[in-house]
Amino acid sequence: MVQHNTNAGPEQQIPPVTPSHAHDEDLLRMYIAECSNWGRWGSDDEVGTMNLVGPAERIAAARTIRKGISITLTLPYDQNGPQPGGFRSNPQIFVTASGTDHTSGAQDPLPAGFGAARGFGFSDDVLVMPTQSGTQLDSLSHIFWEGRMWNDRPASLVGSKGAAANGIENLTGRVVMRGVLVDVAAHRGVESLAPGEAILPEEIDAILSSRGVEVGAGDALLVRTGFLKARRGTWGDFAGGDAPGLSLHMAPWLRRHDISAVVTDTWGVEVRPNEIGYFQPLHIVSLVHGGIVFGEMFDLEALAEDCAEDGVDEFMLVASPLPLTGGSGSPVAAVAIK
Amino acid sequence: MVQHNTNAGPEQQIPPVTPSHAHDEDLLRMYIAECSNWGRWGSDDEVGTMNLVGPAERIAAARTIRKGISITLTLPYDQNGPQPGGFRSNPQIFVTASGTDHTSGAQDPLPAGFGAARGFGFSDDVLVMPTQSGTQLDSLSHIFWEGRMWNDRPASLVGSKGAAANGIENLTGRVVMRGVLVDVAAHRGVESLAPGEAILPEEIDAILSSRGVEVGAGDALLVRTGFLKARRGTWGDFAGGDAPGLSLHMAPWLRRHDISAVVTDTWGVEVRPNEIGYFQPLHIVSLVHGGIVFGEMFDLEALAEDCAEDGVDEFMLVASPLPLTGGSGSPVAAVAIK
Amino acid sequence: MVQHNTNAGPEQQIPPVTPSHAHDEDLLRMYIAECSNWGRWGSDDEVGTMNLVGPAERIAAARTIRKGISITLTLPYDQNGPQPGGFRSNPQIFVTASGTDHTSGAQDPLPAGFGAARGFGFSDDVLVMPTQSGTQLDSLSHIFWEGRMWNDRPASLVGSKGAAANGIENLTGRVVMRGVLVDVAAHRGVESLAPGEAILPEEIDAILSSRGVEVGAGDALLVRTGFLKARRGTWGDFAGGDAPGLSLHMAPWLRRHDISAVVTDTWGVEVRPNEIGYFQPLHIVSLVHGGIVFGEMFDLEALAEDCAEDGVDEFMLVASPLPLTGGSGSPVAAVAIK
Amino acid sequence: MVQHNTNAGPEQQIPPVTPSHAHDEDLLRMYIAECSNWGRWGSDDEVGTMNLVGPAERIAAARTIRKGISITLTLPYDQNGPQPGGFRSNPQIFVTASGTDHTSGAQDPLPAGFGAARGFGFSDDVLVMPTQSGTQLDSLSHIFWEGRMWNDRPASLVGSKGAAANGIENLTGRVVMRGVLVDVAAHRGVESLAPGEAILPEEIDAILSSRGVEVGAGDALLVRTGFLKARRGTWGDFAGGDAPGLSLHMAPWLRRHDISAVVTDTWGVEVRPNEIGYFQPLHIVSLVHGGIVFGEMFDLEALAEDCAEDGVDEFMLVASPLPLTGGSGSPVAAVAIK
Repeated sequence: MVQHNTNAGPEQQIPPVTPSHAHDEDLLRMYIAECSNWGRWGSDDEVGTMNLVGPAERIAAARTIRKGISITLTLPYDQNGPQPGGFRSNPQIFVTASGTDHTSGAQDPLPAGFGAARGFGFSDDVLVMPTQSGTQLDSLSHIFWEGRMWNDRPASLVGSKGAAANGIENLTGRVVMRGVLVDVAAHRGVESLAPGEAILPEEIDAILSSRGVEVGAGDALLVRTGFLKARRGTWGDFAGGDAPGLSLHMAPWLRRHDISAVVTDTWGVEVRPNEIGYFQPLHIVSLVHGGIVFGEMFDLEALAEDCAEDGVDEFMLVASPLPLTGGSGSPVAAVAIK
Repeated sequence: MVQHNTNAGPEQQIPPVTPSHAHDEDLLRMYIAECSNWGRWGSDDEVGTMNLVGPAERIAAARTIRKGISITLTLPYDQNGPQPGGFRSNPQIFVTASGTDHTSGAQDPLPAGFGAARGFGFSDDVLVMPTQSGTQLDSLSHIFWEGRMWNDRPASLVGSKGAAANGIENLTGRVVMRGVLVDVAAHRGVESLAPGEAILPEEIDAILSSRGVEVGAGDALLVRTGFLKARRGTWGDFAGGDAPGLSLHMAPWLRRHDISAVVTDTWGVEVRPNEIGYFQPLHIVSLVHGGIVFGEMFDLEALAEDCAEDGVDEFMLVASPLPLTGGSGSPVAAVAIK
Repeated sequence: MVQHNTNAGPEQQIPPVTPSHAHDEDLLRMYIAECSNWGRWGSDDEVGTMNLVGPAERIAAARTIRKGISITLTLPYDQNGPQPGGFRSNPQIFVTASGTDHTSGAQDPLPAGFGAARGFGFSDDVLVMPTQSGTQLDSLSHIFWEGRMWNDRPASLVGSKGAAANGIENLTGRVVMRGVLVDVAAHRGVESLAPGEAILPEEIDAILSSRGVEVGAGDALLVRTGFLKARRGTWGDFAGGDAPGLSLHMAPWLRRHDISAVVTDTWGVEVRPNEIGYFQPLHIVSLVHGGIVFGEMFDLEALAEDCAEDGVDEFMLVASPLPLTGGSGSPVAAVAIK
Repeated sequence: MVQHNTNAGPEQQIPPVTPSHAHDEDLLRMYIAECSNWGRWGSDDEVGTMNLVGPAERIAAARTIRKGISITLTLPYDQNGPQPGGFRSNPQIFVTASGTDHTSGAQDPLPAGFGAARGFGFSDDVLVMPTQSGTQLDSLSHIFWEGRMWNDRPASLVGSKGAAANGIENLTGRVVMRGVLVDVAAHRGVESLAPGEAILPEEIDAILSSRGVEVGAGDALLVRTGFLKARRGTWGDFAGGDAPGLSLHMAPWLRRHDISAVVTDTWGVEVRPNEIGYFQPLHIVSLVHGGIVFGEMFDLEALAEDCAEDGVDEFMLVASPLPLTGGSGSPVAAVAIK
């Protein structure tokens, strides 16, 4: 358990970066060096920043429950989801036993030698869904950088059978901690941030300060851009296209505050197009090297409304992923309990 | 919210039943009449006994968190699961992007027009699993009786597209309440109850009494038989075969105590073979008519060990199902938080 | 084997029909009565007009092979297929073992106890595709009319487990016969017929006559509209939208000529929008009642080019469907052998 | 097109090999050198021995059709197939629209905006099957040896998206040629060869001679062991276990005769356990280097009965695989036309 953060330092150390920055690679490698947690919890570790969440943090999380309400943060998993098709399709269920079978007499006798139906009937179905197709957590085997993944393991451990290490199943049961909502859209007074708009550490600090809430080691940071609400239903390129999101320059901030999980209402947490000439550089720094759990396409609308109403932006977040052995991620029935 | 239970009565009202009972149908219909909640929360209700869990119950649940630990109750979802194949296969992930692709150069350039890889790589996968293949919750559209499902809706609402009513998505965000573990195997001093052994209300009461814990309206009852532990790995007919479990005569007890959810470490909650000449009669009474949420194939081992160690059998149960629109059930990343 | 056609009569018996026709139902039922083959081959029959193809027909088909070439009529099955997503997605393969696994060393040792790789490697994959998503044959269980399917069987025999009768597996090995191409687009001198343009018997007769080819009992009729070529790549609503195709008034002609299979380069054989106030009325008449095998989304381009070049429009058609037990249809690797 | 075989030589050149052979690797590499077709049809070739089948061969194939019968060689694709589960499951169809939906009124109105049903109904389904799970052809991208596949292409071209070269789609439309059945079980007077029993070139020659049939360049060789019939229904380890089959020493024979395709009624063509210390060495020699198409789990029973009855062991084989872009293999609706 890490309760203290010896790396903390002033925000102004973040270097100014512009699109014409000639030193993208230098910046990326500097952030990697600054933010890496490789080896911090031993060379065998497969859970990254979940190490930051221990009994004290979970008791603190439980103490945020004051109203006794549970708010779901998960989009419906169905054919109306955000995926445009192709590489990642939307979730489907295939019905293998139906009520219409039952009412048509096709379930009498029952299957599997269960005998005469005598009025009994049932439905059954098979779920088919890309693990990254809707509200989901990334595993620490989801992203690679130069042939390595979290904790310096070789990417080649992730073959056609799934991840032999760092799979999503390692996170099951662990994503239970205090969460803090940062509603950037509300702070800016807009319905939604626009694609390409980055969220910088200064703004996060300003929002936390104005709302009178602090984040501590092991907390989950939930950042609302409003983009999911703006695109809901007519998704367009919501999944995979340009999007607002966290700046790469959030990486040192996340590391200094020892944030355990970072969640947004966008497809990829970070701003797109990316700010430097690397694809998803915040993933490279904070997930691959930092071991921070990323949560994507969370539906933060009901939570944001509740927080706006009662002025309380903290809650217990329970977002345990399914133990999909070797999985790159998992759908998650996330709840904020206040 | 229902805090009081006006139907409560003495246990001895349960009629003696033997395999030679000539009046199976009478008994079943009597229990249906006694235990039905149809219409109790309005004719539009799709969540059944989740109505019993409100703010007071959730605050009470939160107050059970004293140690700050989270215990997973979910079996791994993979090819080593309990299913024998056929009707319900074990979960699979299909890898659509791999670390070996990355290390072999097959991800450079990145797909979807994301440009040169510059060191970046990723994995991706598709989950294919019967919703009832592992640790799972039943929806209120999963079981039918004489053409009807929960709250008197026609079974024909569940066609090849899934459930147009009572689907599992209605329960998402709601399965958050106080849970109480009843370790029948420990009480009997056996590793596991044997197939065919039924658990009667008297025994549940005796265990609760001996452990000094009470159950109240809205609580979830988690009953451990030890059968999952006994069969784990070499599953045989664990899923679908004979099993220990709750007696049909638990139905009035569940109704009188206004239990919101009943969970076991077996495939079907109730004892198999069934005690009367109907298939899964407790499902007929308590799920179809009672609207009680059933949880099956939960891994209660770590929880039972912890409860044995600290003598505390209550906890906050968070077992929110995925919002699989129209689904007959859902895998669930259930946690007991103590 | 039916070699003679006692129902033949002059084309002019076809009634004039307009969109304002007040007697759609009368027309439909008249055609059903005129064209039905229910009972013709016994009450147990599950193969319909495949009964028309026997040894003599197959020998005649073989005699059309003069050049020794085999022309594929099947579109690639992949994500570039004609489906817009949703109800029917395009075919996918999920790779379960890859060459990149092999070159990364992830296949050494081999799986399944096969021991050290010693240089050996392999790929493997899983096919996921709607049976009606690309070039495909309809089974005689694919379409229902007023609760019945081919040969007066109840539609309720087709439940969530597939068709208990009339499934596509019945046609396996049988779709081997003489085929005749009718290139309507070439005859009209257009690249493609337009959506809504119907093909009437008179035009079929005129084309056959001008090309000097006859059709006989048991033959397959392959009708090219050019629509697949026109839409290929940028499919739009090709699958499911408006389309050129056979007129409903082809039904008596198909019946009189005892055509065994009718194939087009469109998604649904018949013209869309339909000519009367019933959905896919030619399916109702000729498939449900006539027992004629329908082939859809065939790629007739290479075949049409070859026929134009050598002036020979007849060939051996081999289009045996996969024996998908209970299937509503099947992808098919159809070839025209000339 | 290759009509003549300049490599032909006497059978006695095959070296004697025993289980104690100390030079497995030498033997394997000698056979590779002797049998390789890499570069024979150009460095771009992706169809291997299908180059051996041209117009003359197809006309010769057509001339074998004398009775006008079509015999299916394909096992049903369903849950009763030979796979034991796990890595390769048996084929499944998932019903997405059913007759019970239709009779229950759940298809009125029709989906997709097709309006009022007016009596119309339909079924639809999705096929899910490993391409190697039943009767199937291997692609030339299915097997690798020391990082290479057919025609010296790198195995890394086969990633999680499928084969970028040598995929099964290259063979679509081409597997149409003269086939010759060699019924080894009948020749030996046994119901089935036993697992581990190898078939050597001398025996093939003896059977061909005794039956008065010859094989020529471009022909397909179909070898019946009886093993599929013996195991049918109670498959046990039929798929993946020990099996009778072709000896590795068939490789030079296949090359000398320029056989285009080799087919058996076993899961893997060659004898198991393998005769030398390499896994599936005949695949390494004849598929990877020879470019010969392998067909597996063909149901040769009806064909063998017919050949026994009429004394004619030659036929036209049509076994065109589905054009599954990048696939490692394909189910195939194979027919023998006599």
